[in-house]
Amino acid sequence: MAKNFSALKAALSPEAQSKVTQKTEQMLQEMPLHELRQARGLSQKMMAEALHIQQPAVAKIEKRTDMYLSTLRSHIQAMGGELEIVARFPEGSVKIQNFSDL
Amino acid sequence: MAKNFSALKAALSPEAQSKVTQKTEQMLQEMPLHELRQARGLSQKMMAEALHIQQPAVAKIEKRTDMYLSTLRSHIQAMGGELEIVARFPEGSVKIQNFSDL
Repeated sequence: MAKNFSALKAALSPEAQSKVTQKTEQMLQEMPLHELRQARGLSQKMMAEALHIQQPAVAKIEKRTDMYLSTLRSHIQAMGGELEIVARFPEGSVKIQNFSDL
Repeated sequence: MAKNFSALKAALSPEAQSKVTQKTEQMLQEMPLHELRQARGLSQKMMAEALHIQQPAVAKIEKRTDMYLSTLRSHIQAMGGELEIVARFPEGSVKIQNFSDL
């Protein structure tokens, strides 16, 4: 899907491409873990099965405000995603690499 | 600086804006914590002072491949940045919100 989107975008005029980029940036949604899971069409039970843990453990993770990066990474991977750790500075953003091999 | 950049970019033709956006995306660098610190012109000693910890503790954090989100956040804040947790999916990226108030 990402590839199709890029191809579609590349075929547009520069003006239109610029508009698409702007829209895409605005669309970077912010949501808590449980909403993200629901948006992905997953139940806590399905997450528990994918992570080989019990359902209450999934509920507990979704309520936490702090956790190990490795826990968060496996949680996001169970939803079919990839965790990205970004340090945002006024001068630009940097991806943090230490945790790529968790 | 971010504001000046935005103003400069807004003054460009749509074609040029599109090129700038592309370049900016390519420039999202990936680096480990100690390189990011060096790029920010900071020493381990300065980090230790900002974090009210000992210098060996800073060295230890920079070598870790896993840690609590709160530890990473305070480390990045000591460099003048903000931690952003992103879940990347083929359909798009989502910022994770649970940890905004650490």
